[in-house]
Order: sequence, then structure tokens, then C-alpha cells
Amino acid sequence: MEYFYLQEVSFEKGEAVITGQEARHIAKVLRHKPGDEIFGTNGRGDEFRMVIKGIKPDRVLVQVLERRNGQREPRHMLTLAPAVLKGDKLSFVVEAVTELGVSEIVPFFSSRVIGRMGERKLQRLRTVAISGMKTALRTFLPEVRPAVEFESLVRRFKDFDRVLVAYEEEHATSLTAVLDSKVKSLLLVIGPEGGFTEEEVTGMREAGAALFTLGPRRLRAETAAVAATALCLGLLGDLK
Amino acid sequence: MEYFYLQEVSFEKGEAVITGQEARHIAKVLRHKPGDEIFGTNGRGDEFRMVIKGIKPDRVLVQVLERRNGQREPRHMLTLAPAVLKGDKLSFVVEAVTELGVSEIVPFFSSRVIGRMGERKLQRLRTVAISGMKTALRTFLPEVRPAVEFESLVRRFKDFDRVLVAYEEEHATSLTAVLDSKVKSLLLVIGPEGGFTEEEVTGMREAGAALFTLGPRRLRAETAAVAATALCLGLLGDLK
Repeated sequence: MEYFYLQEVSFEKGEAVITGQEARHIAKVLRHKPGDEIFGTNGRGDEFRMVIKGIKPDRVLVQVLERRNGQREPRHMLTLAPAVLKGDKLSFVVEAVTELGVSEIVPFFSSRVIGRMGERKLQRLRTVAISGMKTALRTFLPEVRPAVEFESLVRRFKDFDRVLVAYEEEHATSLTAVLDSKVKSLLLVIGPEGGFTEEEVTGMREAGAALFTLGPRRLRAETAAVAATALCLGLLGDLK
Repeated sequence: MEYFYLQEVSFEKGEAVITGQEARHIAKVLRHKPGDEIFGTNGRGDEFRMVIKGIKPDRVLVQVLERRNGQREPRHMLTLAPAVLKGDKLSFVVEAVTELGVSEIVPFFSSRVIGRMGERKLQRLRTVAISGMKTALRTFLPEVRPAVEFESLVRRFKDFDRVLVAYEEEHATSLTAVLDSKVKSLLLVIGPEGGFTEEEVTGMREAGAALFTLGPRRLRAETAAVAATALCLGLLGDLK
């Protein structure tokens, strides 16, 4: 199913004009014609079933046939905070966890992070989040935040019902043991390849985080992020 | 921690000669010296702690200090059968699920598979499985089988305690509902982007498979494979 991202479309009187990249995609790549029905979302919770009334290479006039809210969204708000990774590694993570159902992605720097994150990388991550949203037919686009320093991340802990940190030196506590399905909002923190320093771990514990293990096998940060997201959403009942 | 794959090393009288790529890596890249301790696995269940006795660019003589069996392996045997995907997409899957702990990977063709899989792709997947094993410090290298036809895959169903198929037209049954932690061996089937045909679904049901949903959001096959593997191993208690 084709599914379009209608970011800045204003729907007045049940009609709208789609412009930009999505318009070119509809008109030139997919070669739609007036009368065709298409589907899309504004990424802010609404989904539209539309019929094409007029078409130009860079403008598509549509009439809204149906507007629905919050289709296919998880009941829990899961924010993923992955450490900044080298190169393009976060792209896979952002795309996959967006499909799975996260609400927000907050990359962070900590002592052992060796990757960087500039404006270009941020834009790339936002582009793959859009891809993920469209693939998953979601109606909500997760916000990908500019990377924050470790201290700023920890200051945000209080905004969540629960903060969970995957930690390779934790051997006893499993995710099942610390995940309460009654929570509404959850922050899931995945460290860099080199792990956290003792000081960072202490800081997170003091700010209320619970540390858990993903088992005895050493995982790449990308694998840990996608696996832990799937496990959280699965255990919360949001993958059914 | 460095961790080497000692594929064809024979350990006689507690000594062994490492050759090939791993020897070059130890000698030239990492510049180890006699007296250094190194760790490795034969990928068949054994892990070795060794001390280097002699070193040449293409040969490393080691003495075994300790030999241990089955470290960090899951208690359940999980075979993943992912549909063949286009390009290099299966590489990410194979690497991630090897880290997570699968025992075997059986790519398969079905009606709606559009990817191919020749000898080169198979070798590439085997190479990334080795990477995944080393990353995860596993002692067991999952076998990556040459791609099989759908009918051959279904004929293998009887070899497993349970066969689970992620199916996008299944809306009621969750993974939790069909996964019994008492099973010892499990086959997890992930279809191609286009899904299965009705005929294929009927065939799998008749051969004893249980179909389950990963939720209402449409997932790329790669995301589904990694997420379902994490969920299965997590629910079976093998990610703690």
C-alpha cells in the first residue's frame, strides 16, 4: 500500500494541495491520475483517505474522503535514547525502531562515544524516520532530537514513568523483571560500544534508572537497540 | 575483548598452530607477542584461553591454558528461516540474530520472493555469521544453509518442537500466545516483503505451524526477523 507523508498540507473545506517531494512522487513516479484514491498521514496522528481531483508535476489537488485518528499506534510512549554511533549505524536503528513503534528518539553523547553527530546526520536520521513511519503505516512521526550530552539526558529521566538502561555489567536483572506493563511512558537507554563508565552508571541509578541485562552474549549497540525495543514493546503488549 | 575463530585448529597435547586470516590478524594487525594471552572458539562449542608461544606473520603457535564448553549459549535451539531478500539485506539480519543467539539460519524461496541467492551471497552471509559469533563471544557458530525451496522448508517442520510463522494477515494471535517455553527446538519463519500466498499459508498450517502477529504496524522483513528473534529468545528466557 502506498502511503504518503503530508507534512505541511492544510486541509480546508475537505480539500488540500500536496506539493514538494510527495507530489512529484505521486505525479511522476507513480503516475497517478485524477479519480485515484490515495492514503497518507500528517505524522501528527491523523490519517487521510483521499481522491485525486487534479494533478500537475509539482502539485496534487485532493479531496478528503475520510479522516481517522491514531491508527496502528502503540498504547505506550517509548522513547529510545541510543548512544551516538559511528558512521551510518544509527540509521538502521532509527528506521527499525520507528517501524516497531517508538515515540521519540534521543541520541546522546557519553564518555565512551566515539561517533559524531552533526546537522547532516540528524537530517539523515529524520529522513529514515519518515521512511519507517511510511513503511509501518503509522500516523505518528517519532521526533528525532539533536544529540544531547549525557547530563541532559539524565535530567530528562524524571519526565518518564520508568527509565531502563541496558547494561553489560548487569548480570542478574532481566528486562522482564524491571518492566511494569502499567507504565505509560518509558525511556530506554542503550549505551555505546564501549559501555558506560562507573560514574555514569551511578548517576543514572541515582536519577532513578533501572539497569537490566540482555543476556550473556555481547551485542553490537545497533542489535541491542532494536532487540531491546522489540522486547519492551512486546512485553508491554504493543506488538500484537 | 578480542576473540578469535579457530576453525580448523587441532589442539594436540595442549598446543595448536593458528594459520590463515586469524593468524595474520593476531600477528600483523594486533601485533601480539609471545607471552600474550588470547581467547577464541572453534565454533563447535569450545572456548580456549591460550598463551602465544611463537609467532610468524602467517602462523601463531599457542598453548592452551584452559578449555571450556558451551559458554554463553542459549538453552533453546532457535532456527531462523528468513525469506531470501534483495541485495545485502539478509546480512544485517544474519549478523544481528547470530549475536542474539540463533542456532541455524535457513533462507528460503517462496512465491513472492524477489531476491536471489547464489554462492557469493551465501559466503557473505557465512562471513557475517562469523563476525556475529565473535562479537557475541559465542562458542557456537550458527550454520547458514544454502537457500531452500518453500516445499523443502515445510518438509523440515516436523524436525522442530514448534514452528512459528510471522504473518501479516494474522491479527488475533500474538507471539506470547503460541510460544511455549517448554519447547527445546523452535523454527521461526519470516516471509518476504510481499507476504505469503494463501496456498503457502494453508500448507504451513497443515504441516503444524502456528501463525502469529507482530502487531498492526507493517514491518520490513529485516526488522521483523530481528524483532521476532529477540522476542522469541526473550520470552524463552534466553536473553537474561
